[in-house]
Amino acid sequence: MADILENIRSLTKKGKGKIVMCIADGLGGAPHPDYDGKTELEVARTPNMDVLAGASSLGLMNPVNYGVTPGSGPGHIALFGYNPETLTIGRGVLEALGVGFHLQKGDVAARANFATRDSSGVITDRRAGRISTEDCRRIVEKLASAVSEVDDVKIILEPGIEHRFVMVLRGEGLGDRLKDTDPQKEGLPPNSPVALDDSSQKTARIFSAFLDKALPLIADEPKANALLFRGFAASPQLETFPERYGVKALAIALYPMYKGITRLFGFDVPDISGTLEDEITYLKEKWNEYDFFFLHYKDTDRAGEDGNFPLKVEYIEVFDAVLPEILSLKPDVLVITGDHSTPSLLKSHSWHPSPVMLYSPYAGFDRRKRFTERECATGYLGTFPARALMSLLLANALRLDKYGA
Amino acid sequence: MADILENIRSLTKKGKGKIVMCIADGLGGAPHPDYDGKTELEVARTPNMDVLAGASSLGLMNPVNYGVTPGSGPGHIALFGYNPETLTIGRGVLEALGVGFHLQKGDVAARANFATRDSSGVITDRRAGRISTEDCRRIVEKLASAVSEVDDVKIILEPGIEHRFVMVLRGEGLGDRLKDTDPQKEGLPPNSPVALDDSSQKTARIFSAFLDKALPLIADEPKANALLFRGFAASPQLETFPERYGVKALAIALYPMYKGITRLFGFDVPDISGTLEDEITYLKEKWNEYDFFFLHYKDTDRAGEDGNFPLKVEYIEVFDAVLPEILSLKPDVLVITGDHSTPSLLKSHSWHPSPVMLYSPYAGFDRRKRFTERECATGYLGTFPARALMSLLLANALRLDKYGA
Repeated sequence: MADILENIRSLTKKGKGKIVMCIADGLGGAPHPDYDGKTELEVARTPNMDVLAGASSLGLMNPVNYGVTPGSGPGHIALFGYNPETLTIGRGVLEALGVGFHLQKGDVAARANFATRDSSGVITDRRAGRISTEDCRRIVEKLASAVSEVDDVKIILEPGIEHRFVMVLRGEGLGDRLKDTDPQKEGLPPNSPVALDDSSQKTARIFSAFLDKALPLIADEPKANALLFRGFAASPQLETFPERYGVKALAIALYPMYKGITRLFGFDVPDISGTLEDEITYLKEKWNEYDFFFLHYKDTDRAGEDGNFPLKVEYIEVFDAVLPEILSLKPDVLVITGDHSTPSLLKSHSWHPSPVMLYSPYAGFDRRKRFTERECATGYLGTFPARALMSLLLANALRLDKYGA
Repeated sequence: MADILENIRSLTKKGKGKIVMCIADGLGGAPHPDYDGKTELEVARTPNMDVLAGASSLGLMNPVNYGVTPGSGPGHIALFGYNPETLTIGRGVLEALGVGFHLQKGDVAARANFATRDSSGVITDRRAGRISTEDCRRIVEKLASAVSEVDDVKIILEPGIEHRFVMVLRGEGLGDRLKDTDPQKEGLPPNSPVALDDSSQKTARIFSAFLDKALPLIADEPKANALLFRGFAASPQLETFPERYGVKALAIALYPMYKGITRLFGFDVPDISGTLEDEITYLKEKWNEYDFFFLHYKDTDRAGEDGNFPLKVEYIEVFDAVLPEILSLKPDVLVITGDHSTPSLLKSHSWHPSPVMLYSPYAGFDRRKRFTERECATGYLGTFPARALMSLLLANALRLDKYGA
């Protein structure tokens, strides 16, 4: 057992403890000079989280490692107890998940851009002048209806925002080691499709044949007359979350990316929409059917990305307001944290560890009055890798056997 | 040097610093609702540890990893600076150590149960109605005197409590990869002896011949007419503790399990009995002969396992009372911690990190008034893996060279 956190499956046992993992996306912040050097959590009025902090364990979690700013993929890989330094989800797969595409085993996905080329074939605009999303949809539909398969391989195209779309190849024996055709800068022609290993030769051949059919169809588009592809990636073959932890797991999320990632890990993922209140209503409906509940709240991250400090504060308060409804279900273990920090000060994801609050009958060490980054930094849990969170949750739910005699 | 903690031997140097490691088994606790949310350490009156806390470094140690509840084996493997995620001590070996058996290199040990079978050979009671320890001793002696060897292999049987005993095979070329014969549930016959690799074929053959001779001898026992074996394991080949750290090491413990584990690691282990006071007396007698002293105190764990909060408090106070005697020897480095936590609240070992207090002339950072889990959580040492404790102790004893130029 080289890495016990990766092999925790051998210790899982049947239990009754219900676990709720609340992810307020981008929850953690950084001291902001315009707000008296306080963070969003420090400025927010959070009476419910404050009470919970008095009966919980607090800490800080590094999603990947010290100083490393994670994308949403690595952030969630770690939250689910997998190692984001060794398990990666390819760019193409994340893009497909992000547009709500249901990947199947063996699918190879790639991120695609419309681009502009001149008469010599050289790329003059890698983003095709950021054509409208409507134009993107129109051209993708033209391509999709004309080239839906090559030999025994289905070609599936999903439009995204502006010049972006996703291509998925579905068939037998498709490796994913293909060189990007995107030259990454203007003034160069696209790279030719090239397989980087033997098992990807078929993928390269199919993809090349697709290009031969697709390019003439868009030759007369004024801006979107070229195609660039990158991040070819197969859907990873994972030991699923329910398999690894022996729990029936439900993911409640509103955004396609988080529905997609949790589906990849084998969660049951309803295709719900609406607001945080709708998510809570759904949680209550399904309370008796599952052991583990992943609840994703996006708004905190969006406000942070926009650099909108007061709005992030407001969204934190919105989350705080629904906490009593979650607690009324009497979860055995409840954790509140983020998949990464998104300080308004930085207007982006950051490397700051995520504040974490773990509530259970066996975790009431920290008699704090607030749930903030600073309180967490001196909490009972210390600073720890996010991928250790799952074993702490299972332990507190009495779902782990003793290791060794 | 892939893992410096595993290869610390290259940095050890001769020194005069004497180190005392005091293990109060199961020392750490969890907040108990019946005691105002306090832990056993918080309720206990510990004037001597309180004074020491004012001149020490405090911290929390994870014996194995976050959320992982260790058995005594992994707990001590980590305290001795070995990696409990990669080094395991098999069940049979631990059982043999637990009954005080002196394992030799190459021995293969297994945990054995007397059981009851019906006329068709099916197991009807895996514990033989929990026969008395006296009956166990009588039947084991009958078997041992009749079947003491098969070919060139000695068969050694040691009685345990009630239906339990230990079998040790001693001879050349004995692998330990044997399938358990214990079917783990009633209504099935025992599994036949099966080797799981080539090097264990001889072990399986000898064991099988042993069974053929032994079973007829107990056929007329009313309850104990069958034998079940599990956890076949060879004594591990270790770099010993004195080799690794360049110290002369003495282990003072009263319980067979801890005498056995320390013997396995190459400590000198006197076969003493009595009370904690007797352990201290022995420590004083041997003070000039050793560099490193392991002192094991069991009672704290026993009270925790029984869920007896006030008794665990009392045993902590008993330990506190002898501390001045240890300090009167003027150890250069003294550490007080546990091999794992045993909260009365849980009545079992737990995943909670162990509180640790390290006293040396170079560690007087934490001017605390108490030695408790909560004080340790914000101590100078932070939260760290228990297997890093040994290098901290050696460093504080000035027994480690600089690493690199």
